[in-house]
Amino acid sequence: MSLSQQTLSEIVGTLFTEYSRKRGRGKVADYIPALGKVDPQRFGVAVQTLSAQKLSFGDAEEPFSIQSISKLFAFTMAFAERGEKVWERLGKEPSGTSFNSLFQLEAENGIPRNPFINAGAMVITDMLIDDFDDPMFELLSFLHNLTGCNTIDYDEEVYRSELAYGSRNAALCYLMKSFGNIHHSVRKVLDLYFMQCSIRMTCTELAQAVQFLACSGINPLTRTQLLTASQTKRTNALMLTTGLYNEAGDFAFRVGIPAKSGVGGGIVGLIPSELTVATWSPGLNALGNSQLGIDFLEEFTTRTGLSIF
Amino acid sequence: MSLSQQTLSEIVGTLFTEYSRKRGRGKVADYIPALGKVDPQRFGVAVQTLSAQKLSFGDAEEPFSIQSISKLFAFTMAFAERGEKVWERLGKEPSGTSFNSLFQLEAENGIPRNPFINAGAMVITDMLIDDFDDPMFELLSFLHNLTGCNTIDYDEEVYRSELAYGSRNAALCYLMKSFGNIHHSVRKVLDLYFMQCSIRMTCTELAQAVQFLACSGINPLTRTQLLTASQTKRTNALMLTTGLYNEAGDFAFRVGIPAKSGVGGGIVGLIPSELTVATWSPGLNALGNSQLGIDFLEEFTTRTGLSIF
Amino acid sequence: MSLSQQTLSEIVGTLFTEYSRKRGRGKVADYIPALGKVDPQRFGVAVQTLSAQKLSFGDAEEPFSIQSISKLFAFTMAFAERGEKVWERLGKEPSGTSFNSLFQLEAENGIPRNPFINAGAMVITDMLIDDFDDPMFELLSFLHNLTGCNTIDYDEEVYRSELAYGSRNAALCYLMKSFGNIHHSVRKVLDLYFMQCSIRMTCTELAQAVQFLACSGINPLTRTQLLTASQTKRTNALMLTTGLYNEAGDFAFRVGIPAKSGVGGGIVGLIPSELTVATWSPGLNALGNSQLGIDFLEEFTTRTGLSIF
Amino acid sequence: MSLSQQTLSEIVGTLFTEYSRKRGRGKVADYIPALGKVDPQRFGVAVQTLSAQKLSFGDAEEPFSIQSISKLFAFTMAFAERGEKVWERLGKEPSGTSFNSLFQLEAENGIPRNPFINAGAMVITDMLIDDFDDPMFELLSFLHNLTGCNTIDYDEEVYRSELAYGSRNAALCYLMKSFGNIHHSVRKVLDLYFMQCSIRMTCTELAQAVQFLACSGINPLTRTQLLTASQTKRTNALMLTTGLYNEAGDFAFRVGIPAKSGVGGGIVGLIPSELTVATWSPGLNALGNSQLGIDFLEEFTTRTGLSIF
Repeated sequence: MSLSQQTLSEIVGTLFTEYSRKRGRGKVADYIPALGKVDPQRFGVAVQTLSAQKLSFGDAEEPFSIQSISKLFAFTMAFAERGEKVWERLGKEPSGTSFNSLFQLEAENGIPRNPFINAGAMVITDMLIDDFDDPMFELLSFLHNLTGCNTIDYDEEVYRSELAYGSRNAALCYLMKSFGNIHHSVRKVLDLYFMQCSIRMTCTELAQAVQFLACSGINPLTRTQLLTASQTKRTNALMLTTGLYNEAGDFAFRVGIPAKSGVGGGIVGLIPSELTVATWSPGLNALGNSQLGIDFLEEFTTRTGLSIF
Repeated sequence: MSLSQQTLSEIVGTLFTEYSRKRGRGKVADYIPALGKVDPQRFGVAVQTLSAQKLSFGDAEEPFSIQSISKLFAFTMAFAERGEKVWERLGKEPSGTSFNSLFQLEAENGIPRNPFINAGAMVITDMLIDDFDDPMFELLSFLHNLTGCNTIDYDEEVYRSELAYGSRNAALCYLMKSFGNIHHSVRKVLDLYFMQCSIRMTCTELAQAVQFLACSGINPLTRTQLLTASQTKRTNALMLTTGLYNEAGDFAFRVGIPAKSGVGGGIVGLIPSELTVATWSPGLNALGNSQLGIDFLEEFTTRTGLSIF
Repeated sequence: MSLSQQTLSEIVGTLFTEYSRKRGRGKVADYIPALGKVDPQRFGVAVQTLSAQKLSFGDAEEPFSIQSISKLFAFTMAFAERGEKVWERLGKEPSGTSFNSLFQLEAENGIPRNPFINAGAMVITDMLIDDFDDPMFELLSFLHNLTGCNTIDYDEEVYRSELAYGSRNAALCYLMKSFGNIHHSVRKVLDLYFMQCSIRMTCTELAQAVQFLACSGINPLTRTQLLTASQTKRTNALMLTTGLYNEAGDFAFRVGIPAKSGVGGGIVGLIPSELTVATWSPGLNALGNSQLGIDFLEEFTTRTGLSIF
Repeated sequence: MSLSQQTLSEIVGTLFTEYSRKRGRGKVADYIPALGKVDPQRFGVAVQTLSAQKLSFGDAEEPFSIQSISKLFAFTMAFAERGEKVWERLGKEPSGTSFNSLFQLEAENGIPRNPFINAGAMVITDMLIDDFDDPMFELLSFLHNLTGCNTIDYDEEVYRSELAYGSRNAALCYLMKSFGNIHHSVRKVLDLYFMQCSIRMTCTELAQAVQFLACSGINPLTRTQLLTASQTKRTNALMLTTGLYNEAGDFAFRVGIPAKSGVGGGIVGLIPSELTVATWSPGLNALGNSQLGIDFLEEFTTRTGLSIF
């Protein structure tokens, strides 16, 4: 685990060139029109080491819809605020079924399996409404502090589009409410939930934003402790077992790092005490994760020899 | 990650004393008489570093029924023999449902979720029958080579008892056969499967046996490469996401190391490039894992600061 | 099947007296406050033969919340309007799971099993919104024509209460919308659905209202053909196999007549070419059907010897 | 309900001619070789009135594998022997899922939904082993008495074939055994179960054999009461709600009579106090029922106007 900066840069550069040729793999999410019109040829990669080396390739500076990656930041805020009490209303286990399935939620009395599936993220959203006067403002401020970039915002068009096509998420939320696990109105929860999903960030910003997870919970930009060292390790473990929906096991097997994906085509991951990495390629595989992103990250950990295992 | 041997010994010793007072937690597996009569007060811990320091406490030298821990060794043999081809007949994902559930297996056409649930281990067993003339002899030889201990064997009484009470496992196996995913007779597969489950080993032997998983696939006793470095990392990732049945996520969250458990009350785990650890306490929690073992391991990683995250 | 009017009157009278002593069985539905305050001692029975003999006992003239019995009338309107085309969007099979379960609906792509479970009734409601300018007005008019009683209306308090506590039904409706099987807004569908459920009728009115199902589809009051003879037989068959939620098989076995129940404690049934019968007792069994009602009806068919089998 | 014998004969004759042209519909069951080789062009119909008129057409005298129709006779024997106690180990509800599904059986603790799905029939078989010294001999004797035909027997080749390909049924049986709902060895139960399924009968024999169900439980050949009048009604109700697997609702809707089908292509049904009918056409629809048989029976009840509704 002691790659020189030079070597890392060479490896990632070579890899990026190789995988650029494979752009266009997978299928762009089109469940809402606003996402469907993204160019499938986009491809960006950003790597940031703890020694502050920053590498970026292709469309790494292009903002895209982070979608479910927002679940990681919302969870961090709730975990920091409530500690172990967050687990009173959700679990820490892989879901084993499709990421927006109602079956398991019904069988398990409205308690979502983990905070990284849609249902779990809605419970977190419901908590944030309790914990903050203006939770969306707080979430954006949190991202501004993490990245040093104050222009990060959500996309109004995507947000409206999500709301309009959000029947399945509404079903999930109403089901949880029927079990008493949503305290605020479904309308309010969905509103905030879809706003979060519509946040736009670049690969570079994402790689910066998760640095604290590679640094024992400390935001290197502000030197503030966001999560305790123990909470940070636990969050990383949770990402590893549940961060890629129903593909978490396969991703852990092939890539072997804690990561979180979104249907916008982004993936952000990290190797504790080493580096963070973010990729963006909008083409998704059958399980809703960026196909080129996963392939690239597998080869990235293989060639650098960086892994947590 | 640089504990002195002295410190490690002190920490584990102190911890063992503390947790010894909590013996008797949980409920001894009693689905077969031969397991039910084990003394719930038994508690053993063995730790072995890569620098060959060996620590053992309590009943660490007492053989017990390793049960599902055998799935790890059987899988290793099949993975070494067949490489990525093992995945043609099983998955790498957490199961998300009870470890002997038929529901998911039926819904997914007889393809088990992973090699560490019962159904998956039976498919591995079916493969071993193809790959070896006398697979049970080979498995025991493999364990003899891993541990340097030639007396490791299976327990005839437990094996007979498992066979007699094995209706649910027979149901799983016949279901897979109906989908064409078991090639040999159910009788033959169950026979070998239950023999494996009935193997008896000590904590010390288990900690030695998984050293290769902490050493990039090399058996330190014989200097032979059992799995490639890449296969070893992947096996560790698989243990992390699926090694503790339906509690894998919680275990990863709390303990944060690759591990495999058995209903005999054993747990074996490892921190790559650092050490291996095995615990034995027969009292199980509601999810079928050793309760004292999990509690001990959580505190062990907390106090030593050793973790993969 | 040729009981004299005298005998029928004696049998039902004796039976009513006997079963009156057993009032208070079961548990009054309390998922909404407006239903929970009904007196569990209420018990009414009305029988009406095709020769126009009308018998009524106890609280037979007391209006109560017909709840799911409304599904029968709404279905009749849609079936009369659309014929076999109603089956393009729902099935004719027993559900086999709880009456408001999402699991089956999800597994079967948003196509409800039959028109007498909640999800199926919502699809019917969605159809009625297409077919009529003011569907609630039409439904009430339909009931006025069937009964000759123009005061039948819905209960504003129950309707508001259902809306306020309707999270699970909202989940069902949004789930179907996500599959494209609800065409209007969920708000509009739920609004009409809950209004229907809140209709209040008496046992006497119910026994009159289903006379057409015992008369080959002809409303005896107006001599108009509401359903064809074939459609009528089919509706009766559907009631027999699916009219009592998840207890339809047991009810067919014990009672042996087409019937529809509601959580308000009402049951309405019929023997083709013979008679119609309605009972009301608010105490429900574990499956949501009136316990005293079922017990009474079983004995009613036994003693009269009237049965379709 | 008062067709002259002349008219009935004419209607059925005309219908048979019409539907003969449609032979070859559906797909012959081929899960075992012995069934797969049956000629798909075979088509037989037998009708027998309570006034002893017997009509037979086409291949009505040709023996075929009755398969699941045997469940009706086995259930009758157990019901006659044990009365309501049979329900201690199985239900009376439609299954709502595929006829050999394990999911529901697992969720409901090994209690099959009804005696006409495979799992339920195995529980009945397990009961018969308790109740009779030689249950297969008794079952054949029962059929001899019902039909007056002493040559009815099972087909050794089909029986062997079923045993050889019976993995899924073995899974069902072992699952129930794991819940304690099978008392004898799985081998013994499956052996008897498959023997029953392999019985060969003709349409004429089947129409005769179920006469008792149209005659209040009395075997007209021997004047013996096999079931009480009440038990007979209940058995008919059970056939209506569960006799055609997962198609029972649709069959009740379209045809409207109690009936039982088998994958050999046979269907036997009845109209109480009127007549019994049996059809044979080996081509099955997607749900495992004879396609031509269902189509013929729908038109048969439509044209004769005979129906229970």
